[in-house]
Amino acid sequence: MIFPFTAIVGQEQMKLGLVLNVIDPTVGGLLVMGEKGTGKSTAVRALAELLPDIEVSAGCVFHCDPEGATLCTSCTAKLAGHATLGREKKKMRVVELPLGITEDRLIGTLDIEHALKHGEKRFDPGILADANRNFLYVDEVNLLDDHIIDLLLDSAAMGNNVVEREGVSFSHPARFILVGTMNPEEGDLRPQLLDRFGLCVRVDSIADLDLRVEILRRRSAFDLDPDDFLRAWAPEQQTLSDRIIAARQSLRQVEWTDEILRKVVEVTSAAQVDGHRPDIVIMRAARARAALEGHRDITAEDIRETAHLALSHRMRRLPFEEPGAGQRKLESVLANIL
Amino acid sequence: MIFPFTAIVGQEQMKLGLVLNVIDPTVGGLLVMGEKGTGKSTAVRALAELLPDIEVSAGCVFHCDPEGATLCTSCTAKLAGHATLGREKKKMRVVELPLGITEDRLIGTLDIEHALKHGEKRFDPGILADANRNFLYVDEVNLLDDHIIDLLLDSAAMGNNVVEREGVSFSHPARFILVGTMNPEEGDLRPQLLDRFGLCVRVDSIADLDLRVEILRRRSAFDLDPDDFLRAWAPEQQTLSDRIIAARQSLRQVEWTDEILRKVVEVTSAAQVDGHRPDIVIMRAARARAALEGHRDITAEDIRETAHLALSHRMRRLPFEEPGAGQRKLESVLANIL
Amino acid sequence: MIFPFTAIVGQEQMKLGLVLNVIDPTVGGLLVMGEKGTGKSTAVRALAELLPDIEVSAGCVFHCDPEGATLCTSCTAKLAGHATLGREKKKMRVVELPLGITEDRLIGTLDIEHALKHGEKRFDPGILADANRNFLYVDEVNLLDDHIIDLLLDSAAMGNNVVEREGVSFSHPARFILVGTMNPEEGDLRPQLLDRFGLCVRVDSIADLDLRVEILRRRSAFDLDPDDFLRAWAPEQQTLSDRIIAARQSLRQVEWTDEILRKVVEVTSAAQVDGHRPDIVIMRAARARAALEGHRDITAEDIRETAHLALSHRMRRLPFEEPGAGQRKLESVLANIL
Amino acid sequence: MIFPFTAIVGQEQMKLGLVLNVIDPTVGGLLVMGEKGTGKSTAVRALAELLPDIEVSAGCVFHCDPEGATLCTSCTAKLAGHATLGREKKKMRVVELPLGITEDRLIGTLDIEHALKHGEKRFDPGILADANRNFLYVDEVNLLDDHIIDLLLDSAAMGNNVVEREGVSFSHPARFILVGTMNPEEGDLRPQLLDRFGLCVRVDSIADLDLRVEILRRRSAFDLDPDDFLRAWAPEQQTLSDRIIAARQSLRQVEWTDEILRKVVEVTSAAQVDGHRPDIVIMRAARARAALEGHRDITAEDIRETAHLALSHRMRRLPFEEPGAGQRKLESVLANIL
Amino acid sequence: MIFPFTAIVGQEQMKLGLVLNVIDPTVGGLLVMGEKGTGKSTAVRALAELLPDIEVSAGCVFHCDPEGATLCTSCTAKLAGHATLGREKKKMRVVELPLGITEDRLIGTLDIEHALKHGEKRFDPGILADANRNFLYVDEVNLLDDHIIDLLLDSAAMGNNVVEREGVSFSHPARFILVGTMNPEEGDLRPQLLDRFGLCVRVDSIADLDLRVEILRRRSAFDLDPDDFLRAWAPEQQTLSDRIIAARQSLRQVEWTDEILRKVVEVTSAAQVDGHRPDIVIMRAARARAALEGHRDITAEDIRETAHLALSHRMRRLPFEEPGAGQRKLESVLANIL
Amino acid sequence: MIFPFTAIVGQEQMKLGLVLNVIDPTVGGLLVMGEKGTGKSTAVRALAELLPDIEVSAGCVFHCDPEGATLCTSCTAKLAGHATLGREKKKMRVVELPLGITEDRLIGTLDIEHALKHGEKRFDPGILADANRNFLYVDEVNLLDDHIIDLLLDSAAMGNNVVEREGVSFSHPARFILVGTMNPEEGDLRPQLLDRFGLCVRVDSIADLDLRVEILRRRSAFDLDPDDFLRAWAPEQQTLSDRIIAARQSLRQVEWTDEILRKVVEVTSAAQVDGHRPDIVIMRAARARAALEGHRDITAEDIRETAHLALSHRMRRLPFEEPGAGQRKLESVLANIL
Repeated sequence: MIFPFTAIVGQEQMKLGLVLNVIDPTVGGLLVMGEKGTGKSTAVRALAELLPDIEVSAGCVFHCDPEGATLCTSCTAKLAGHATLGREKKKMRVVELPLGITEDRLIGTLDIEHALKHGEKRFDPGILADANRNFLYVDEVNLLDDHIIDLLLDSAAMGNNVVEREGVSFSHPARFILVGTMNPEEGDLRPQLLDRFGLCVRVDSIADLDLRVEILRRRSAFDLDPDDFLRAWAPEQQTLSDRIIAARQSLRQVEWTDEILRKVVEVTSAAQVDGHRPDIVIMRAARARAALEGHRDITAEDIRETAHLALSHRMRRLPFEEPGAGQRKLESVLANIL
Repeated sequence: MIFPFTAIVGQEQMKLGLVLNVIDPTVGGLLVMGEKGTGKSTAVRALAELLPDIEVSAGCVFHCDPEGATLCTSCTAKLAGHATLGREKKKMRVVELPLGITEDRLIGTLDIEHALKHGEKRFDPGILADANRNFLYVDEVNLLDDHIIDLLLDSAAMGNNVVEREGVSFSHPARFILVGTMNPEEGDLRPQLLDRFGLCVRVDSIADLDLRVEILRRRSAFDLDPDDFLRAWAPEQQTLSDRIIAARQSLRQVEWTDEILRKVVEVTSAAQVDGHRPDIVIMRAARARAALEGHRDITAEDIRETAHLALSHRMRRLPFEEPGAGQRKLESVLANIL
Repeated sequence: MIFPFTAIVGQEQMKLGLVLNVIDPTVGGLLVMGEKGTGKSTAVRALAELLPDIEVSAGCVFHCDPEGATLCTSCTAKLAGHATLGREKKKMRVVELPLGITEDRLIGTLDIEHALKHGEKRFDPGILADANRNFLYVDEVNLLDDHIIDLLLDSAAMGNNVVEREGVSFSHPARFILVGTMNPEEGDLRPQLLDRFGLCVRVDSIADLDLRVEILRRRSAFDLDPDDFLRAWAPEQQTLSDRIIAARQSLRQVEWTDEILRKVVEVTSAAQVDGHRPDIVIMRAARARAALEGHRDITAEDIRETAHLALSHRMRRLPFEEPGAGQRKLESVLANIL
Repeated sequence: MIFPFTAIVGQEQMKLGLVLNVIDPTVGGLLVMGEKGTGKSTAVRALAELLPDIEVSAGCVFHCDPEGATLCTSCTAKLAGHATLGREKKKMRVVELPLGITEDRLIGTLDIEHALKHGEKRFDPGILADANRNFLYVDEVNLLDDHIIDLLLDSAAMGNNVVEREGVSFSHPARFILVGTMNPEEGDLRPQLLDRFGLCVRVDSIADLDLRVEILRRRSAFDLDPDDFLRAWAPEQQTLSDRIIAARQSLRQVEWTDEILRKVVEVTSAAQVDGHRPDIVIMRAARARAALEGHRDITAEDIRETAHLALSHRMRRLPFEEPGAGQRKLESVLANIL
Repeated sequence: MIFPFTAIVGQEQMKLGLVLNVIDPTVGGLLVMGEKGTGKSTAVRALAELLPDIEVSAGCVFHCDPEGATLCTSCTAKLAGHATLGREKKKMRVVELPLGITEDRLIGTLDIEHALKHGEKRFDPGILADANRNFLYVDEVNLLDDHIIDLLLDSAAMGNNVVEREGVSFSHPARFILVGTMNPEEGDLRPQLLDRFGLCVRVDSIADLDLRVEILRRRSAFDLDPDDFLRAWAPEQQTLSDRIIAARQSLRQVEWTDEILRKVVEVTSAAQVDGHRPDIVIMRAARARAALEGHRDITAEDIRETAHLALSHRMRRLPFEEPGAGQRKLESVLANIL
Repeated sequence: MIFPFTAIVGQEQMKLGLVLNVIDPTVGGLLVMGEKGTGKSTAVRALAELLPDIEVSAGCVFHCDPEGATLCTSCTAKLAGHATLGREKKKMRVVELPLGITEDRLIGTLDIEHALKHGEKRFDPGILADANRNFLYVDEVNLLDDHIIDLLLDSAAMGNNVVEREGVSFSHPARFILVGTMNPEEGDLRPQLLDRFGLCVRVDSIADLDLRVEILRRRSAFDLDPDDFLRAWAPEQQTLSDRIIAARQSLRQVEWTDEILRKVVEVTSAAQVDGHRPDIVIMRAARARAALEGHRDITAEDIRETAHLALSHRMRRLPFEEPGAGQRKLESVLANIL
């Protein structure tokens, strides 16, 4: 049994970053930086538990969305043969990417012999197939092989996984919420790769003694009688679940004004981050936050909250600069512009 | 034949750490640091020998607990087919993890060909299967491949091992008492990994001459006539075995008070350790010690004894700080708070 | 759906470099250097989308040009057997080269067993087969294995891929437009290899705030209703497509005069670049630009525009020289000579 | 033909160390340190040649001792089926461990397919099987892979080799006399591993000219007519062989007194060696020497002689300490205590 | 179609070095050092195109010379069976050695199973088989694996390739003209290996503007109408081809006098090169040049011209010596002696 | 055709070292140190050519000596079956050890499946089988894998190669003359391994101009008409061949006196070399030289000549000592003692 998301004490930024990705997956994932033992993996599993089931094409190992624009090769073939896609409900899962995974295990492989002999494509799905429409959790992403993380981020960007050999190809959607963690004391991530994570938060252990006792109290209550504990937190869980569902539905009604877009580029220019991706990330994350908050206009507050998540890992750190300097610079930029 | 646990001279902390884990495996294992030739491996084997047999599902290669909440895929299928699980007794074992083990050998592999052709899952179990409900002993854990130790600690944390390929999956419980050893002169363990061991003790060889002669005397007596020696120590062995069985049964009756929890967080805060795991470990270990001692309230003494085991490997060592500094700091912290 | 090429804001040099290669593939490919998040991959995909379909030999996995001087072994055999090659239309594609690709996957392999037993050649095509008459996109080319990039550039130079074993051989045309990217902060490319890219451009993110808002505005419009957006940009797309088709047809009518050739070698001599390849690249790129501009004479302007693209990556950078020094030197060379 | 052990000139410590291990294999092997060309391998082969044949279970590839407490899985099965074990004589052998050996070749492998299909275990024995009841000679042990030497020393300590896969297991006794050599100029052995060798001697080439001429004289006589040479040394060989056989038989009649044990721990304490293994090694080696000398009481002389062999490689060498310092310290310790 | 050898502008030393090897392959190959883009590979291909066809044993995959002293195992067997070798003409080829080639692919492999079962040798030929009587072109020889280059140079020296397993062997002639290139800025070649190339030249790009325009003019003419261009250069091609054929036929009539041999050793002694190979190389190369020039006596001029090619890569370069120092020293040596 | 051994100009020490090994292979091989292009490999091949054929057991792939004390497993079995060994003559060969050879290819492998199924041993012979009773030539021995050179030197020392698996074993004699070369500028050989070569010589190219002209003159004469050249040198070749055959026959009649043995150990003591192997090598090499010179007494001259070959590579070189210091020291030692 899984500890309820809403019973997690503190760590508000991490929780916001996860929820924004759940509302709009094009926000582009979350990188969680921080020391050991701060419940990163627990939080992701807890959020997945709280979300409503997804509706998938019955029997499809890629759990295609029957309403989706992109379907896997098998579902597409089924539709082309005038069959209809059955529907079934599935729980969202947290798929873990093992360190040391091979390319074949990540993207899957195609059995050419079989295709040539029997005229049907046999595809051995990889982790990306499992990850479709789920969370993909990558612990210690900075220890991952560079080639693998490239493949991973490319798939995340394309939302699709295509495997080809000898003119035979198989494709399936690969839309997932990528959550990576890293302990910055154990090695960096190339800026090129850092940039590919939509949002980034830093988590630390909680210093306040009362909150720490509260953590232990909830943990021991959960250990002793999990069923009872879950009953006690059910209303909180339901409230958050309802808010997320509502935000997803209203998302496309929230609109960007030119004024808001100008604020965004003013912020990213002043923060001196490279490329145009940060602008787009803030644009999307701010909209998701507005939807979560239940209003139709994006506010300066939405930009401020999400700019923190979108920019901290993209600002260049000068050598010898103190660790907190970037954060302070960002705050002064936001204060000036918003 | 195995030298009796209770005949081991000295090394009280190591023995306590092992016994606490045996009473409550969620304490999270034991790391033994120390010089060569101090009988680490002997002690673990000796404790396994002393423990009562476990009851397992008959014929199950994972020795599932027939009363357990989690069963392996095969046992689950058997129950679902309205069969009942037979029962048999098995001796607890010490499973060793070989250096240089591969991922497949650790977690096992799934024969997909067979599953597709014959419609039944064929799983080639790994070391984690052997380890379920046993001790998993990892000598020189700091020389182990990082990827393997990650997998190992993840399984230890989840209590379950799931192997998946192409939508086919097999799972079995993997609840074991992890005992690692390391010689700190031969390389460090990443703090990330150190932290994943619930408790840690340091063992050194005994300096007292009389005790050393006693060690030789017992060893030579055992060498000359092991059967006779075992008979002589049988009552001591029985006493400890009885205490452990009693502690296991009374464990859930021992309760934490808020006052005790506050003491725990005060200790960990003052000791400046990262994350919330140390709090939880002390909470559980102190309860196990109270149960071993036979009382229903957790005492300051329980916290003091277990805080030593839970915190020493989690305190940051400053560069140039003398080796004993952490220990003294911890003692002064405990003296102030308890 | 793909964002339209003509709707990309700015990045004129990159767009010119791509278009010149499309008009005359012997220009030799394009290397794009620059920071992350500047839409390099998007631009190539967008250009491929805009180009007209190519006519290919029906059923040929190498999509041979039925009018081409070089055909694959299978098409050649078909013609030799007095069959005619059927024709079909295919969309141009962007083939990506995965990091860590093996030689066999790049050039394909030949099944000798099969050839000896059945008397027919069985060739398992590689990425070079996919790439024929398409774009071959190599992200972070400087992280690629040296051996692979050698093979790649050799094939690009020969326009043909021959695989031989035991006197049995298979060949197919391998004419593709090679587009590589690299982030110079993440390692160099050997000068030997740099030189093998016909053209090179540097892209940076756009600083102008209005343009940045425009980028966001177009992106959000595309996100909200892609079909509508594509309709709005269709005329622009058609115009560029027409210009490219016209330039291809008129290319061989554009002639080099001795005066123009002398200008070219004066420029390359003054710029102190090694070897004779830069002369030939400028000669070809300037002709392509003249064709794109719709005139029959190559002008000084054509040389100036293409010399920038052809020379910047071939000039030696002195140690301690400021980054912009080469650019300024090149401009003064061009001002003196043209 | 092999040069006779008793005709070896000098090297008394090495010869004693080998003979003590032959009398009581639980002494734990011998590490020979020294320069090249000092006849280390020759001496071991010569001793094996001199020892009486061993009685083994007929047809057993592990040459199980039919009287032994531990038998291999096959012999155990035979006995369980009420068959009796035939007996045959075998010459003792020197098994060499090749550098670069794999784990499979060392411990053997188990053919699971065969076990599942035919219901019988098929075990492909490794070097440890060959080594059972023989010498295992490891040249340049410090150049061996760490993982292999761990496996080797573990087996040596357990006296048993167990190979397990999928619940199928095969075991056989692996009791051997481990002789390692190393040239300290070519790299160290981790203290952890050094400690696992019971005894250690240092050999140097002989400086005395007369002895060196004697070596050449014996060698040339052996080269010219080996049969004649062996006849001349037969009585010496027989005498030593008889003494060893007698010592083995009387070993368990030699007893340790508390006074002797106290001397042992006083010596090891004063020598400041880690752990309790050195105490046990001296205890056993001194008993073996007493048996070799033919008396029933262990004398101070027995401790002195064997303490040299047991302690020299276990004393910590201070940086910048001269090489002979440890030896002198040890001698003064022994002079004080014995 | 291939650009004609005689139309290559400049690069006289490289062209001479290639032609001398073509006249007498025992000269021992050519190493071309120089910067990128100087047409090294083009020149070799162009020379191969110009040479007359070779006469080969019909159907032989090693293209054995039916008049040759050494034949492959198959041709030898055919002759032994009193069959005659058919004859056919083949174009000379340029075989490229891929970077990263394995030993098996280089020397070929022998299928022992087949030999034992069917009593006939089945040999899977390697690159050395392709290379026999052809050019073997090794780009960037300094980046090649040391083991491979050793094998290559050994075969080049022996003129024969023998593959043996279990007493079964297969051999074929492996006489080829080895042409290696290297860019000295990208790493050295061991002197041991440098020395194994008979001759060495350095090529640089041409500085003269008129010549550079001429290069472009010829290249553009060739690009626009290759057939027309080849017709224009046919007479020049024929002349060179005739001279090479004549030189080959007269080679053995050119004689060395003692005076000439003395000049050669005076030159190599004064140039302080190691070993006796340089003497032999000059002896052979000077004879080939005399034959090319059409006279029967070797002149001082022949020695001077070839000494440059034979010695520059064999002279030791002192640390801190300027690059041109060796060349100047060589010139003064030659001026003094010749 | 092979250049005659006696026509090689100079290099007397190398030639002596080779001939002594041919007379008595227990001398232990020859290591040739020196610069490139000094004809090391040529000399070995030339000596093999000059030696008389060896008589071998007919059809034996190990070319067992039918008179030898040790035979291969097959020949032994034949004799045991009361068959007689046929005899045939074979030319001695020079077997080359390829760099990068694997253990299996060196020592051969045993096909256990076959042995178990068909009851007969099938052994796939390695290079050591080819090398039996031949030369084994190892070029650049210092670049060889340490493990391989250990195996090689062990076999050379034992004169036998035993391959064992699962109680099945195959053995064959492996007596060969090991000739290694190394260029000391390209890395050292561990002293441990250096010591295992019986003799060592240093070769340099010849400085004398007349001799160098003579080399060229002989080489060119050989190149122009090899048959004629061989005829001219036939008497010289016959003389040396006769001397070697006579020396082999008289070898065991040459005797060592105590006085001579004392001289040997005085020399090695004064030269401060480690171990007793150098004494034995000089003892044997001096006897072989006496036999070659045709006398029955070993003279001081025999010791002096062979001590150079036996000691130079075994003397410790002090850091910062000039290269020639060892040689001078050795000469003064020899002058004092002999």
